[in-house]
Parts: sequence; C-alpha cells; structure tokens
Amino acid sequence: MRPSGRQADEMRAVSLERGVAPKAEGSCLVTFGGTKVYVTATVETTLPSWRRNSGLGWVTAEYGMLPRATDQRTRREAAAGKQSGRTQEIQRLIGRSLRAVVDMQALGENQITLDCDVLEADGGTRTASITGAYVALVDAVRWLEARGLTKGPHVLRDSLAAVSCGIYRGVPVLDLDYLEDSEAHTDANFVMTGEGRFVEIQGTAEQVPFSRAELDSLMGLAEKGINALTVLQKAALA
Amino acid sequence: MRPSGRQADEMRAVSLERGVAPKAEGSCLVTFGGTKVYVTATVETTLPSWRRNSGLGWVTAEYGMLPRATDQRTRREAAAGKQSGRTQEIQRLIGRSLRAVVDMQALGENQITLDCDVLEADGGTRTASITGAYVALVDAVRWLEARGLTKGPHVLRDSLAAVSCGIYRGVPVLDLDYLEDSEAHTDANFVMTGEGRFVEIQGTAEQVPFSRAELDSLMGLAEKGINALTVLQKAALA
Amino acid sequence: MRPSGRQADEMRAVSLERGVAPKAEGSCLVTFGGTKVYVTATVETTLPSWRRNSGLGWVTAEYGMLPRATDQRTRREAAAGKQSGRTQEIQRLIGRSLRAVVDMQALGENQITLDCDVLEADGGTRTASITGAYVALVDAVRWLEARGLTKGPHVLRDSLAAVSCGIYRGVPVLDLDYLEDSEAHTDANFVMTGEGRFVEIQGTAEQVPFSRAELDSLMGLAEKGINALTVLQKAALA
Amino acid sequence: MRPSGRQADEMRAVSLERGVAPKAEGSCLVTFGGTKVYVTATVETTLPSWRRNSGLGWVTAEYGMLPRATDQRTRREAAAGKQSGRTQEIQRLIGRSLRAVVDMQALGENQITLDCDVLEADGGTRTASITGAYVALVDAVRWLEARGLTKGPHVLRDSLAAVSCGIYRGVPVLDLDYLEDSEAHTDANFVMTGEGRFVEIQGTAEQVPFSRAELDSLMGLAEKGINALTVLQKAALA
Amino acid sequence: MRPSGRQADEMRAVSLERGVAPKAEGSCLVTFGGTKVYVTATVETTLPSWRRNSGLGWVTAEYGMLPRATDQRTRREAAAGKQSGRTQEIQRLIGRSLRAVVDMQALGENQITLDCDVLEADGGTRTASITGAYVALVDAVRWLEARGLTKGPHVLRDSLAAVSCGIYRGVPVLDLDYLEDSEAHTDANFVMTGEGRFVEIQGTAEQVPFSRAELDSLMGLAEKGINALTVLQKAALA
Amino acid sequence: MRPSGRQADEMRAVSLERGVAPKAEGSCLVTFGGTKVYVTATVETTLPSWRRNSGLGWVTAEYGMLPRATDQRTRREAAAGKQSGRTQEIQRLIGRSLRAVVDMQALGENQITLDCDVLEADGGTRTASITGAYVALVDAVRWLEARGLTKGPHVLRDSLAAVSCGIYRGVPVLDLDYLEDSEAHTDANFVMTGEGRFVEIQGTAEQVPFSRAELDSLMGLAEKGINALTVLQKAALA
Repeated sequence: MRPSGRQADEMRAVSLERGVAPKAEGSCLVTFGGTKVYVTATVETTLPSWRRNSGLGWVTAEYGMLPRATDQRTRREAAAGKQSGRTQEIQRLIGRSLRAVVDMQALGENQITLDCDVLEADGGTRTASITGAYVALVDAVRWLEARGLTKGPHVLRDSLAAVSCGIYRGVPVLDLDYLEDSEAHTDANFVMTGEGRFVEIQGTAEQVPFSRAELDSLMGLAEKGINALTVLQKAALA
Repeated sequence: MRPSGRQADEMRAVSLERGVAPKAEGSCLVTFGGTKVYVTATVETTLPSWRRNSGLGWVTAEYGMLPRATDQRTRREAAAGKQSGRTQEIQRLIGRSLRAVVDMQALGENQITLDCDVLEADGGTRTASITGAYVALVDAVRWLEARGLTKGPHVLRDSLAAVSCGIYRGVPVLDLDYLEDSEAHTDANFVMTGEGRFVEIQGTAEQVPFSRAELDSLMGLAEKGINALTVLQKAALA
Repeated sequence: MRPSGRQADEMRAVSLERGVAPKAEGSCLVTFGGTKVYVTATVETTLPSWRRNSGLGWVTAEYGMLPRATDQRTRREAAAGKQSGRTQEIQRLIGRSLRAVVDMQALGENQITLDCDVLEADGGTRTASITGAYVALVDAVRWLEARGLTKGPHVLRDSLAAVSCGIYRGVPVLDLDYLEDSEAHTDANFVMTGEGRFVEIQGTAEQVPFSRAELDSLMGLAEKGINALTVLQKAALA
Repeated sequence: MRPSGRQADEMRAVSLERGVAPKAEGSCLVTFGGTKVYVTATVETTLPSWRRNSGLGWVTAEYGMLPRATDQRTRREAAAGKQSGRTQEIQRLIGRSLRAVVDMQALGENQITLDCDVLEADGGTRTASITGAYVALVDAVRWLEARGLTKGPHVLRDSLAAVSCGIYRGVPVLDLDYLEDSEAHTDANFVMTGEGRFVEIQGTAEQVPFSRAELDSLMGLAEKGINALTVLQKAALA
Repeated sequence: MRPSGRQADEMRAVSLERGVAPKAEGSCLVTFGGTKVYVTATVETTLPSWRRNSGLGWVTAEYGMLPRATDQRTRREAAAGKQSGRTQEIQRLIGRSLRAVVDMQALGENQITLDCDVLEADGGTRTASITGAYVALVDAVRWLEARGLTKGPHVLRDSLAAVSCGIYRGVPVLDLDYLEDSEAHTDANFVMTGEGRFVEIQGTAEQVPFSRAELDSLMGLAEKGINALTVLQKAALA
Repeated sequence: MRPSGRQADEMRAVSLERGVAPKAEGSCLVTFGGTKVYVTATVETTLPSWRRNSGLGWVTAEYGMLPRATDQRTRREAAAGKQSGRTQEIQRLIGRSLRAVVDMQALGENQITLDCDVLEADGGTRTASITGAYVALVDAVRWLEARGLTKGPHVLRDSLAAVSCGIYRGVPVLDLDYLEDSEAHTDANFVMTGEGRFVEIQGTAEQVPFSRAELDSLMGLAEKGINALTVLQKAALA
C-alpha cells in the first residue's frame, strides 16, 4: 500500500493555473499533490552571444527552491554563493527537454527563459516543473505570434509533459511522492510528448539494480501518466 | 494626481494570508497592491555558533526576488553567485527590525529565520516583507510556546509594521508604488511598532535634499499607514 | 556622563587634511577623534556601460577597512572573497549621498570614484567617510574644471557632511564614539547639506523603539554638528 | 556507414591498464578508442561528517577534463572558479552508479574517492570513466581487505560497466564517438552490472523524440557492449 | 643616469615610523621614496587548527594595495572577489621571509599576523613591506615578552630587511623605483638578515637573460642596501 | 647520503616524450624520477584583449595537479572554487620564464598556452614543467611556422630548462626529490637558457639563512643540471 493510499497507477491531484504572474509573457502555477512550482516564461529579443545571427531562437530554464519548500529549511543558494549540482542538473534537464519540441527556426531569434521556482516540495519537482513549463512556454510563444515576432507557423512541434515512476516495496508505482521517493529502490523520470514519444528517460537504481522487465512496467505507467497530463494541459490551454 | 488615482494618504489594498506554507512554523503571503511577498518563518533549536550558550535566542531574515517579479527579468542571484548589495541591505533591515520587538531571553535558545521571497514587485517590497514577516513570526513564536520551548511570557514586546512614504511631484504621499518610487525626489521607509514608536527610519533624497518640514509630513503619513497595517495584522492573527 | 567626558552636544576633534594622496585627483585624510579614514577621489573619463552616451556623469564610492583598524583584527575582505553586507551598505550610502549634491549634466561624461579606507575605527566611520569624501570630491571637480572637462558651471550644488547621533544612557548625544555606539539604544546617521537640508537619515532602534520627540532632539544635535563640519570643510578647501 | 567504419554493434578498441598511479590505492588508465581517462581510487579512513558513526562506508567521485583533451582548448575549471553543470552532472552519475554495487556495511566506515581525469576526449568520457573506475575501485577494496579494514565479506555485489548508444543517421549504433555523438538525434547512456541488470539509464532526444522500439534496440546494443566490457574488466583484474 | 638622479648604489630616502596604529601590538609606516606601506602586527593567542598543540607559534602575512596607490586606479580586490596571483605571491613571500628569523618554539603557541597595506606604490612595495614588517614584528614580540607569553629567550634570531636591485639601461642599480622597474631588463629582490645572510633571492630576467657576473654585482649592491636598512631599523627600534 | 642513493650532483632519470597529446599543437610528457607532468601547448590566433593590435604575440601557462599526484589526496582546485596561491605562483613562473626566450614580434599575433598538469608529484614539479613546456613550445612554434603564421625567423632566442638545488643535511645537492625537499634547509630553483644564462633564480631559506658561498655552490650544480637537460631536450626535438 502506498502511504497516500493511492493505487499503483494513480497520479496525485494535478492542477495547472495559467497566468499567475502578471508581468511575465507566460506563467503557470503547477501542483502535483503537495508539490507546487511557480513557473514564468520570459521572452527576450536578444540571444546569448554564441547564438546570434544564426537565424535560430533559444529556450533555456532555471530552477530554484524556496528555502522552506522542504520539511527542514534548505540553505538559500544565493546566500551559499552557488547553485548545487542537483539544481544545475535539474535546470539543464528542463531546458533540454523543452528544446526538443521547439522548432528553433520558426521561433526566430528570440529567447524564452523558463524560471521554475518550487514553493513546496513533496517529490517530483522536476517533472512538475517540466509539465508546467510547457504551459508557460505555449503562452510565451502565443505572445510572440500575436506580435508577429515568430518566423514560421509551428514553433511547437508537440506538447510535452513529465512524470516519475518507481519501484516502491517491490511494486511499480506512478508519480512518486516524497515518502515513496525516499524509499523506492528504483526511480525513473520520463519526459514524453503528447504523441507518446520519449524525449528523456532517466532511470536510477538507488539500491538494487533493476531488470528490463521492471523498466518496461515503469514505462507503461509513465505512458498512462503522460496521457493524463496531456489532457490537463490541453484543458488549461484551451 | 497619483498614477493609481489614490489619495495622498491612501494605502494600496493590503492583504495578509496566514499559513500559506504548510511545512513552515509560520508563514504569510502579504500583498501591498501589486507587490506580493511569500514569507516563511523557520524555527530551529540550534543557534549560530557565536550565540550559543548565551541564554538568548536569535531572529534573522533572508530576502530574495523571483527573476520575473519585475517587468524586465532580473538575473537570478543564485546563478550570479552572490547576493547584490541591495538584497543584503534589505535582509539586514528586516532582521534588525524584527529583533527590536523580540525579548531574546524569553525566546530562549531558539532561532527563527524569516525568508521573504518576492513573487511580484511593484514598489515597497521591503515594507511589505517586514509587515508580513511580523505575522509569520507571531505564528512561529506561538508554535514554540505551544511546545513549551520558550523561556518567558512575552517573547514579542509589541507588533511591528512598515510603510514607505515619499514626495511625489511635490506632494507627500503614502505607500509609494513602483511608478511613484521611480520618480519621487524623496523616499523614506518607516518601521514602527503597534504603539507608534519608531524602530527604523530611512529617508533618502534622490535628487533634491528635503527639509525638516517635509520629513515631518512624511512621518505623519507613516503613522497613519502603520495604524492601518496594525489593525490588519491584528485581524489576520485573531 | 560620556566615556570621553564630552558634553552631550560636543563633537570629537575633527581634522580634514587635503592632498594626502599624491597620485589622486583629490584626497583627504579625515579624523573624527579616534576614527581615521583615508579618502581618495579618482577621475576617469570612461563611464560604466549603462551610463554612456547619456550626457551625464557618475559618482560612486567604495569602502574598506584595514584589518587592524579595530581592536580585534577583522578578516581582510579580499582574502574572504567578498565584501560584507555592512561594507556594501556603507559604500552604497556614501555614493548615493554624494550624488545628491552633484549636477550630473554639469559634470559631463566623467566618473569620479571615492575610495574610503578606514585606517582606524572608533565609531562613525561612515559619517567621517562622507565628510572627508566631500572634500576630496571638490578637489576632483576642480581638477576637471581646470582642464575644461566639465560641461556646466556649478557641478556641486551644495556642500555635504554627515554625523551620527544617538541616545546614550537616556540622553541624546552628538557624534557617537565606539563605546557609546555599542551601548546606545538608538543610533541615527544624518547626511546634510551645508544649507541644512537632509540628504539621508537613517535611524535605528537597537533595543528600545524611539519616539518622535527623541528623533527631534537627535535632529537638533545633528544640525549643530553639521554646521560645525561645514565650517571645517570650508576652511580646508579655502 | 559510421565515420570510423565500425559495424553498428561494434565497440571501439578498449583497454584497461591497472596500477598506473603508483601512490593511489587503486588506479586505471582506460581507453575507449580516442577517449582516454586516468582514474585513481583514494582510500580514506575518515568519512564526511554527515556519514560518521553510521557503520556505513561511502563512495564518491570527481570528474575533470584537462584543458586540451578537446580539439579546441577548454577553459580550466579551477581557473574559472567553478565546475560546470556538465561536470557536476557527470561526477554525480559516476558516484551514484558505483554506490549501487557497493555493500556499504561491508565496506565499513571507509571512504573511497574515484578521481576521473580525462586526458583525451573523443565521446563517451562518462561511460569510459565508470568502466575504468570500477577497476580502480576493486583494487581499492582489495587494499582495504588486505589490511583487514573491511567489515564484511562481499563489499562489491557485482561488477559495473557503462556504454553509450545512439541513433546515428537513423541507425542504432553502439559506443558513439565524438563525430557520431555530435550528430546523433538520440543519445543514451547505460550503466549495467556484470549480471546484466540496469543501474542507470539516461536517454535523451537531441532533436527528434524517440519511440519505445528505438529505445529497445539501443538496450539490446548496450547489453552486448556491457558483456564485452565485463569480459575485459575480468581479464584486467585477474 | 637614473630618472631620480640617484647614484647607482644609492637608496631612496627611507623612513620607519613605529607605533602608527594605536590598536595594534606592533606597527610601522615605512617609506622607500614614493612608496609608503602601513604595516600592523596583530598578536593572537589562537593558532590555525593544523598548528595547534605543536608547541610552536606561527607568523603569517597579508598584503593589499589601496586602489589609488597607483597612477591609474587599481580595482579593489575585495570588490573583485579575490586576491590576484601577484598579491598572493607577495604575501607568501613576506610571511615566509619573516618566519626564517623566528624561533617558533620560543614564540610559543601564539600567532602574529603582519598586515601590509600599500598607501602609495612607486616600486619596491614588497621589499618595503618586509623591512617595515620586521619592525612591527619586533614590537609584537616585545608585547608578548612584556606579558610573559613567550616560551624562550630569543624569539627573533636576527633582524631582516629587503631591497630590490636591477639592471637599468645596462647598469646594475640599487632600489628600483617604478620608472626603473618598468624598464629594467633584470629585476631581483633580496631578503637578508642583519648579519648578511640570505633568506630569499628572486631574480627575474624580464627580457634578456642575465649572467652570473651580473647577478654577482646585484648581490653586492643588495648587501650594501641591506646594511643601510639594518642601521635604520636599529635606530627605529632603539 | 641522499635517500635515493644519488650522488650530490646527480640528477634523477629524466625523460621527455613528445607528441603525447594528439589534439594539441605541441605536447610533452616529462618525467624527473617520480615526478611526471603532462604538458600541452595550444595555439590560438586570438590574443587577450589588452594585447591585440600590438604586433606582438603572447605566451602564457597554467598549472594543475591531479588530486592523487600526491601521497595524500589533495583537494581538487576546481571543486574548491579557486586556484591556491602556490598554483598561481607556479603558473606565473612558468609563463614568465618561457616568455624570456620568445621574440614576441617574430611570433606575431598568436597566443600559445602551456598547460602543465602534474600526474605524479615527487618534488620538482615546477622545474619539470618548465623543462617539458619548452619542448611543447618548440612544437607549437614549428606548427605555426609550417603554416606561415609567424612574422619573423627566430621566434625562440634560446632553449630553456629548469632544475632545483638545495642544501640537504649540510650538503649542496642537485635536483631535490620530495623527501629531500621536505627536509632541505635551503631550496633554490634555477631557470636557465641553453647558453647558460639565468632567466629566473628563486632561492629560499626554509630554516637557516644561507651564505653567498652556499648560493654559489648551488649555482654550480644548477649549471651542470641545466647542461644535461639541454642535451636531452635537443635529442627529443631532433
């Protein structure tokens, strides 16, 4: 039995609230159960220097966690003077994942930055961030399109969402919360498109190496979760 | 006339929402018009090393701004690798102000950290932070009292709130928003107790030095604003 | 009684020695009793990039303390790898204060940097720094004028000086030394022009909040001190 | 056709030279074709503070690249003042992977640090690092065992190796070199045990999302590659 | 002919003013012509952790330059966030040199830190620093002896001074000033004891390698300069 | 007797292996007994900004040590976030020494960077680095010459090598290894040209100041060692 009483293939309650940041070109407050991430999308018409005059746009992401998003207060990274390895790994994942569904030529020489700040952390902050960032990204692209600033018709090739799965007490389960994540012997994050193709898979054996059969069952759960998230994204963006 | 259409002595709409952070011992989402700050209070039973075995507690604060709290995206301080001088100045002000109403002996050897993270910035982020931080602090003290962890009866000697005033187009006005703040030739922040005594005054001439009479009129406005904030704090904490 | 035996409204011995740094365009060794600050003014004909081509000049300041300016050796900030929050707060104050008396259009596209390095610290290092920096600034402006590098007749709109006051053992006193500062329950810094207008007021209750009447009496003392400093500045610059 | 003329399922020439670092408790110079990594294992009998008195050991890794391991000189991270996000991500992966085959109770309160320094980089530096680090780790464990410093019989539960696969010009291929890696539209790293179980999978779509069938074919290649590496590791350690 | 009109073997005017820093246990304002260094010696009864319980003391040094010690303003190292390689090299030299004349056993478990801050730089700042630091060190040792805090009779085994020499327009000259130093094709620093033995020699060919005969002639000049400095140190310390 | 059984004037076995780094324009694996340094030379056709459009080239060096080059693991400088003072001192020495034999006009506006990474450290890492860096530098210059990218015929004015000497148990000895270096009371590094002129001398008394006679005997040993190294360099470069 899962600590939350959920079924093995049951996601937490998910909500996607658009437009929470009045100054940003796109934004989304995303919750996966007790995990809450505040995402903003910023459009800039300047690119990093290495990307200029390429005819291509750029999408990047930054991630942070408020100090008291966690049960114990976490040290503020700005005060510590650097971002942790974990933070950098997550923000690289978010940026890379989003770029996989963007047609950079169609985007034109614009940059979109997704800032994902975790207000509450209860497991799955990176998957919630990606899922919410896609929504904010759509609004940022629409903002550009409305001003005629894009260079082609289909800036976004597909939708994008992410979910984690893991083997908890021997059972493959969908959408790990913090309690499950701490104890799971395998933990995998899946980033997938709305059409069901993979953009990123990261599977990690915490203690016990996993078999191909176990990975297959996690993939099955992930597909189910991504389908549900895709429906919610479409509803939020309608 | 003020850009917002407010009267000279009229504050923006203020709200104080307690308990927004489920994991923190105290929290408050404070809004002053378009300024929104998410404040958490963290209780720790360990002190910084220089304070240990003194029989006294400690209260400190940290301040940050989400990158897109502002019209233009601000660089994330964790990515920049340091807190700006402005950030440090503000967090030092918040901590110092709160300490002025705390009886450190009664608090006992506990530390309370106030984290003030600005979600939206439209002027007055430091005064909103202090006003909201007081509310979160009260809850953190109550949390300690409920567990018998304090060492005396009146940990908080008085309530505390803050407001800015300034001279905008020649007229002293209360609670500057961003548009006014950018243009005001004098800008002053007042931190006061519920009983109307001063904890901190910071007055700055941006362009034109100000007279004692002008300062007096700003003080009068500040007293009015603090009274209103004190009433709202009492209501929020009831 | 004050530890130094001074009257409540009596300043420490103040001296302003011009031209101590032979390479700088302006300089001043300023002493307020046991506090000694070495100030240099550097003229540069290049501006920070954000200020270029604006037709306006810029004035900025940096502050530092030699490690053994204090009773206990203080860690060297260059070795620590960063300036403390206190240092940044002080240097921001010095720069902001000086800018309030400078006509940036008349200054033209020149930058003047005031470096204030404390050789000995006995309270009031920021007020001594501002008072001495004004003297060095005048010499730097004269240096520019002598070379025809300014763009208007009255680069400096007024003179500028600063002094601290505080409530020491219940009595408002002028120009706190270190012993008084450590114990005072209210401490206020006043930056004022030669004509008696305010450029900056920073009042802080260390323990006990202060009343408007107390603030008024501190302002009265400050006006007296600033008058005396203005006379000394005029003499030094004659 | 692959740039190197290899078959789709053909690895580059791999060598594992043990004992290259005379001062280290374990070491291995590993080459995967034109990729060469110098790995040392350091045994320390002290643990990081958070791990002390737990009865458990610890295994960690650090990764670096000599500036001229690449075609263009890369900036030295020590001179830049920080490790890049990529470096941190890789060293976290190496450490996490190795820990998955270590019985921390049997290891006892000892720490083993694997330093992986890339002398030449031609794709697959992280997989070569893991494969060589396992060899160095075995020698470090033997060093501890020879001195009676371990606490149980089977410190290492299984062997460990890693290989990358990718889809290059539409064809799944094994062990990408730099030319292939730059162009591949999907790139996956597999860390597996000698018994064929997964410790880590990281699959990334660089441009085109991949299907489950494609991932399956990459897994098949990886299993083949890991088998070959396991044979070489056994030979090197005999 | 030298720019200053000095003879080849003529030092600049040297002065050693003791006791300039009222709070320090030792201090010296040293001038070598237009070079002026403010040196303080701080006694602490705690040692760095790696030196504790060894029965031995420690002497160390830090070096800094006020921003406007030079013709062009130099960036403040505290603001830059690190000490330059040059600064570190100089402060390591000063500390190492002083340690060579200290009997660490006789010093006992005390630490003396020499802070050398350059007020004006006109060549030879490191040699002036060492020469002045020896004077401050003597006073610090006397301070310890007066309190019975040393552990043996002869803490200082000899006196110590330093001077630079160089080959300027083909002629070996003593005590280079900045103009000479910029142009000299060989530059050498000598740190010697009062008895005429060498503690440190650093000779550098800026453009043209030098011969053993040239080095010999520089050594001869150095001995002459050190003798003169030793006489001045004795007088200052009498 | 020396720990290694060598004669007082006997160097360790030295080898210079050219071309070890296939991607670099020059490289050399240099060993002095148990000291092994991997040196690469990188040619870039861009110069640091302060050197551009001067018609002159530039040569610089960076130095690092793999963590387990030493008996005890040394902390990785990239992880520590800065290069130590020792590292900076050494890399400044290497760069300065090499520049002394380069005709910058003949080199033309090209930059050559020498990276010296110590794989094993047994004393003399800086002298081995210089000796090997000269070999790599020659190959980099030849690379430029072969492409017609130099501006004059004799880019290198002479060859360059370095060796350490010291007084070990009262006897002057050549080429100190780590055991000798730890105990020697005087330690000197000599950088000399093939023609026997000095480029850099750094002599340090670790405990006991040294006499001019002792320095002379060290110089004699150094000349002998440099002669031997020059022969080996010629052979390697033939």
